[in-house]
Amino acid sequence: MKTSLRSTMMPSSPIRKLAVYADQAKARGIHVYHLNIGQPDIKTPPAALEAMRNIDRSVLEYSPSQGYIGLRRKLAEYYAGFGIVLDPDEIIITTGGSEAVLFAFMTCLDPGDEIIVTDPSYANYMAFAKSCGAVVKSVRTRIEDGFRLPPVEKFEEQIGPRTKAILICNPNNPTGYLYTRKEMLQIRDIVKKHDLFLISDEVYREFIYTGKPYISALHLAGTEQNTILIDSVSKRYSECGIRIGALITRNPEVRAAVMKFCQARLSPPLIGQIIAEASVDTPESYMKAVHDEYKARRDFLLEGLNKIPGVYSPVPPGAFYTMVRLPVEDAEDFCRWCLTDFEYEGQTVMMAPGAGFYTEEGEGRNEVRMAYVLNRDDLAKALVVLEKALEAYPGRK
Amino acid sequence: MKTSLRSTMMPSSPIRKLAVYADQAKARGIHVYHLNIGQPDIKTPPAALEAMRNIDRSVLEYSPSQGYIGLRRKLAEYYAGFGIVLDPDEIIITTGGSEAVLFAFMTCLDPGDEIIVTDPSYANYMAFAKSCGAVVKSVRTRIEDGFRLPPVEKFEEQIGPRTKAILICNPNNPTGYLYTRKEMLQIRDIVKKHDLFLISDEVYREFIYTGKPYISALHLAGTEQNTILIDSVSKRYSECGIRIGALITRNPEVRAAVMKFCQARLSPPLIGQIIAEASVDTPESYMKAVHDEYKARRDFLLEGLNKIPGVYSPVPPGAFYTMVRLPVEDAEDFCRWCLTDFEYEGQTVMMAPGAGFYTEEGEGRNEVRMAYVLNRDDLAKALVVLEKALEAYPGRK
Repeated sequence: MKTSLRSTMMPSSPIRKLAVYADQAKARGIHVYHLNIGQPDIKTPPAALEAMRNIDRSVLEYSPSQGYIGLRRKLAEYYAGFGIVLDPDEIIITTGGSEAVLFAFMTCLDPGDEIIVTDPSYANYMAFAKSCGAVVKSVRTRIEDGFRLPPVEKFEEQIGPRTKAILICNPNNPTGYLYTRKEMLQIRDIVKKHDLFLISDEVYREFIYTGKPYISALHLAGTEQNTILIDSVSKRYSECGIRIGALITRNPEVRAAVMKFCQARLSPPLIGQIIAEASVDTPESYMKAVHDEYKARRDFLLEGLNKIPGVYSPVPPGAFYTMVRLPVEDAEDFCRWCLTDFEYEGQTVMMAPGAGFYTEEGEGRNEVRMAYVLNRDDLAKALVVLEKALEAYPGRK
Repeated sequence: MKTSLRSTMMPSSPIRKLAVYADQAKARGIHVYHLNIGQPDIKTPPAALEAMRNIDRSVLEYSPSQGYIGLRRKLAEYYAGFGIVLDPDEIIITTGGSEAVLFAFMTCLDPGDEIIVTDPSYANYMAFAKSCGAVVKSVRTRIEDGFRLPPVEKFEEQIGPRTKAILICNPNNPTGYLYTRKEMLQIRDIVKKHDLFLISDEVYREFIYTGKPYISALHLAGTEQNTILIDSVSKRYSECGIRIGALITRNPEVRAAVMKFCQARLSPPLIGQIIAEASVDTPESYMKAVHDEYKARRDFLLEGLNKIPGVYSPVPPGAFYTMVRLPVEDAEDFCRWCLTDFEYEGQTVMMAPGAGFYTEEGEGRNEVRMAYVLNRDDLAKALVVLEKALEAYPGRK
């Protein structure tokens, strides 16, 4: 009685392997600065919390499988603000962006089908693809190029008879890269030419720090029927825990297929939907304050990182992550060592080893992903601890 | 650019096909009695609603992938009340029982692997199996036998080299059947003999009306490492909308595999967990009142049904569903006709066509599933409407 090959092939989260060492460090009284996770410390909008506390229902019943029409209408209004006209019926509410990714994969990919991602990539895409029996192909982006897209031929090289989809994350987790208009048009042309699905994860669209325009996959002309957007309120309103996301597509066949998976799981979380609906009206002042806070954190972290000898990170234009090259052979070993063998004035740092974000074995071994979701005081302390750790680490290059 | 074969093969919900007709009937001003769904009208325990309104958090953050330890401890206490000793680490919180089923299938079944269910069965098991590429084999139970298990040889006949698991739902949806101790021991022996996983969905365990003992799969000796329990707070506390379930197993390899899927989807709903934790302490008086209410509804509905000429339903010992044989050739046509072509004093009924609960094509065509989740006044009116509809239906046998 063995568990499935599918489950054997599922990657473990690059962070989870370290979690036990972090717990042990904390048990020894060491303060751990978490640069490893995308859990913001930003407060959820007060109106969202109020909506939760004011729920006046006596039965917490199933919501519709597609999600409440009220929330879908609100999201359509939100998208109109980005110049994207959607019918609420084109929006399907999911249990977090994660479920939207899973259902998009289930709907587009059969076992053996291929999906192209950029490398490095959000580790859970690989996990969901494995759970579907799909094969992940990758197009490498490089830290020395600031993780910009490679020439379009690199995509073409990966396209074969089993290729069904290209997945982009924009702004990108883990690199923070923001696709340019030119790159988006190139992707559109490839998608059109080879008639592929374009799955676009845009959950970080509020977090763009360059003043450059946000080009959504839904802004592209000519790929309306190919595009599946992944959205989530988690990062936008700092409400990761309510598990409300959305899958958005203008393709009615895709929606009909996705709805079969939605119906099988009955409904997305009821209370999360009520909170999310109230969140869409969050005042611009909150959104701007959050944006400015992340920008300040980014600037502070990146300046500090690039001052540490041997450390390099390109300045990420968006999201709240950055990939960082460290002067070590094996960043996973260094991350573990920080938790098991190091402390500086009772403190240490936890980072996500870069290799877990690459589909290709052996890539990203001297990189880590950092999330700048801590306040600046903590970031300052974490930077000091990191510099001291790199000085003390026996495996330093 | 076609959607996946996987999505093409996903069955549509037996109810959803009719939903559009129900909406149209309502638009014509007709009152529809919903006998088709398992959404109880029972009030959620007040303490659970209070816990939600009193949440004093400023950030609605991710919860742990395995679920909060507080909820897992409470569930361990709950199980102790049934004589089942569990460590909280043996409990994994899921997004509803649905996700627990999906993750159990993902963990046990590779594409082409077989799982045996009893026929008729909860339609979404078939959907989840299809989404995993697994093959559903079935052992037929019959309305004339009250849906009791057939002789054990019928299971043996279905077991082949690709058989990985047996799934039971006890008390059963859609039949309301409750497995006897003898039947549970027979299942245990088959599971042991062939070293299979035993996936046991026990979300209706509070709803047993016969005074007979509740035998959980976790009560069985000798199959501890084979058993995966599916649980949910949805029905027990009338909180279907919060999407909190659990996957429980004493097998550490299974837990490790399940956790990889849990980590990929990050976390179960935060607020639902807080509500669920508060619900476990719901006073016995609430539980008894709900139990007695369902029992009274069951007795009332079954007596009424079996008085209608040509209608037959065995009295279900548990859950809140019953399979009903109608004097028609094609119950799906009849269900649709009730919504499109019939009314009695401005009212009609919606039922779930039986065929959708059978894995074998052509079975259950003269059956429907009814849920007795309406109050007795409404059940009385629905019974009158059903009798009138059967009198007027042109396809009556």
